Amino acid sequence: MTRRVLIAGADAAGMSAAHQALRTARARGVDLEVRVAEKTGHTSYSACGIPYWIAGEAASGDALVARTAEQHRAAGVDLRLDAEVVAADLAARTATVRTASGEEVWTYDDLVVATGATAHVPAWARESDGRLIADVGPVKTLDDGAAWLDRMAGRPMGRVVVAGGGYIGVEMAEAARRRGYEVTLVTRSRVLSGFEPELSARIAAALEQGGVEVCAGSLVTGLCRDETGAVVGVETTAGRRPGDLVMVALGIEPNTGFLAGQAELSPKGYLRPDPQGRVQPGLWAAGDCCEVRQRLTDTWVPLALGTHANKHGRALGDALAGGDLHFDGALGSMITRFAAGAAYAEIATTGLSLATARASGLDAEGLLTEGTTASGYLPEAEPIAIHVVAERGTRRLLGVQIVGGHGAGKRVDTAAAVLWLGGTVDALAWMDLSYAPPFATAWEILQVAARRLAERL
Amino acid sequence: MTRRVLIAGADAAGMSAAHQALRTARARGVDLEVRVAEKTGHTSYSACGIPYWIAGEAASGDALVARTAEQHRAAGVDLRLDAEVVAADLAARTATVRTASGEEVWTYDDLVVATGATAHVPAWARESDGRLIADVGPVKTLDDGAAWLDRMAGRPMGRVVVAGGGYIGVEMAEAARRRGYEVTLVTRSRVLSGFEPELSARIAAALEQGGVEVCAGSLVTGLCRDETGAVVGVETTAGRRPGDLVMVALGIEPNTGFLAGQAELSPKGYLRPDPQGRVQPGLWAAGDCCEVRQRLTDTWVPLALGTHANKHGRALGDALAGGDLHFDGALGSMITRFAAGAAYAEIATTGLSLATARASGLDAEGLLTEGTTASGYLPEAEPIAIHVVAERGTRRLLGVQIVGGHGAGKRVDTAAAVLWLGGTVDALAWMDLSYAPPFATAWEILQVAARRLAERL
Repeated sequence: MTRRVLIAGADAAGMSAAHQALRTARARGVDLEVRVAEKTGHTSYSACGIPYWIAGEAASGDALVARTAEQHRAAGVDLRLDAEVVAADLAARTATVRTASGEEVWTYDDLVVATGATAHVPAWARESDGRLIADVGPVKTLDDGAAWLDRMAGRPMGRVVVAGGGYIGVEMAEAARRRGYEVTLVTRSRVLSGFEPELSARIAAALEQGGVEVCAGSLVTGLCRDETGAVVGVETTAGRRPGDLVMVALGIEPNTGFLAGQAELSPKGYLRPDPQGRVQPGLWAAGDCCEVRQRLTDTWVPLALGTHANKHGRALGDALAGGDLHFDGALGSMITRFAAGAAYAEIATTGLSLATARASGLDAEGLLTEGTTASGYLPEAEPIAIHVVAERGTRRLLGVQIVGGHGAGKRVDTAAAVLWLGGTVDALAWMDLSYAPPFATAWEILQVAARRLAERL
Repeated sequence: MTRRVLIAGADAAGMSAAHQALRTARARGVDLEVRVAEKTGHTSYSACGIPYWIAGEAASGDALVARTAEQHRAAGVDLRLDAEVVAADLAARTATVRTASGEEVWTYDDLVVATGATAHVPAWARESDGRLIADVGPVKTLDDGAAWLDRMAGRPMGRVVVAGGGYIGVEMAEAARRRGYEVTLVTRSRVLSGFEPELSARIAAALEQGGVEVCAGSLVTGLCRDETGAVVGVETTAGRRPGDLVMVALGIEPNTGFLAGQAELSPKGYLRPDPQGRVQPGLWAAGDCCEVRQRLTDTWVPLALGTHANKHGRALGDALAGGDLHFDGALGSMITRFAAGAAYAEIATTGLSLATARASGLDAEGLLTEGTTASGYLPEAEPIAIHVVAERGTRRLLGVQIVGGHGAGKRVDTAAAVLWLGGTVDALAWMDLSYAPPFATAWEILQVAARRLAERL
């Protein structure tokens, strides 16, 4: 009998699951049918690419689409666009799906929740009737990106206020500067507050060098609007700031409301599937609607990233057809940059910060080391600062944070590999990494940083 | 009683040993005296930087000096320049040292051989009296670099023939092109023949795009000179090639002749010290005069690199004062680039090539994967090709080779970390590496390459 899989959501997690399920089913001779319900008209796009599209670097929204609906269908996926799973009866294994022609009830054997997350939009960003105020918007979906391009076309100069100093906030500050806007970034604590204070300060300095006014330690609490309703600024806990357009980059909320009361959700509303995506019999999940397992602390953390969605979705799809791939959690590896005018900073992290490590009960020590990305006598040499965290006793590497010039950021992957395999800070310090003057110093700076910390443990 | 250490050679290995010996001695209260005899007038310079100095990127030869003689002496090292250890009586623990004022006999308790290696110069590069022909020279020492700048000042246009298609040959071809010369590179087999043929072809294509004439599969057998003795070309096994200056990049020979009959040397004349630098009682060695242990095959290989010299020297110095640091061998990690005009290729490798793995008796498989260094919709995206090698059965990663655009090369360090820690190709494929559109694709290409091979094992 054909096993009917219904996947809610056609982005990274959902479509990775769909294709892998079909591949594994073919390889193992499993009779499987995969239908995907996607509430928007878009599928498999790079949400991470939206800031670069807004900045004018990516040619179009279409360029962000990794695979089109036609390509998915050609591979055997029964993809339904503009079809939203609005309710599910997990016991009966039926889903209520809202389509252009009304609500339908679909039956399934396995439901895969890959519904992702929605940008958090505070009350001040909405009109009294709940609609988004015209000059204000989040940056999460392709439609959000298109809305921003429309807003910017209508107001090609002025000041953009970015509310939020996380990754998206920094990337949107870059995008707005590259588009020629004045930019104010308002952030509750420090910019990228998961970074060590010294590194966060370097990031803020790069933003300021690139023309971004950074208002740290304050929160947007409301908008200032003129008599026509147009936004002219924001109210913050530190006073008014002028601005014509407001980008909301204040985090996300998982799209799991339709499961309330039927499946266990985390305090923040996320699902917590196993390494193969299982939540409970008949229910599977992957992607931004899930928390992921932090390998180093063995705790659940929200880490909404396409990389995890792709990997977890793939493992899930394999498991749907009886395979044994598994997604073994995350380290918290991230990279971004701020590049505007003469300012350029690569920003990356993997594993635990010193504060997180200690809060997790680990006997951790950390150290900041400064150096250059290439041999100092070459024009390629740019500053790099690396903070390394390790555990006393076991000497296990726990985390690395990097801020620096060209070539700095991706060095974090070397540390990620060590973390993934449970290596020590000594192993990182002494292993055989590549060297040539345009790419490194003779003692690679990542290894100098590890060695210096090793000497203090 | 003071233990007297005599170090022969004041470059990476020797000076790393000297300083670490003094640091460890201080920390452990060991009474140690360190004297270093250096045959040239230079110390602690970046030999790897010489091509960039010749290219005009590094301001001067002095810029390549990491620490001056004064800095070494200020740290407590009894550094004697222009002092060459020409003979040693290991049983008596005495060394004969040639200085400006004649030969002296020094006594010691421990002799550290850090004499490095000398460029191999074939007979055709010498006059009948043994002197180097004026238009011909190797590229190994600071004096070699200065000689090249003199030659180029005297002949600011023309064609340079580079004899040798290894790393130094490629780097010198870049340097000569950047200085504005026409360049012919003559290499016995392929360019960088340790690389897979497909990757070697990409490297050759980059060289040709950058204006280098590549003569693969041929060997320089002699020079063509005019009636004044000036070089006007080279004779090769594939015929004559014009050229005014000839760079010799044909490998190196270890400076260990003075130990013949007293210490065991490898067939190629190298020393084979243990992880702490011990050769035999009273005799230690590190750096380019030694072979290093290839971790993956547990065999001895010549791998003359500053990174190994620094690390082995440091471990040796620590051991001299009773410490327990150790140099645990090498993977064969290397990186370089070819950049001239519009041509740009980063070139990197770690671990074993497929051919080497199989020749070592391993049941190895390999696969080439092509992709981009960044998300395809961004201008940062450049081609990258990755060859991954792994062992059937154990699924252990064995090696990675990379050729690609900006940001491609240093990815090899992630693979090196996996190799160092004995990880599988599956671990590399699924670990949490960093992603953002300007730096990677959502499935990092290194992981795609690993995953594709994993699926075929």
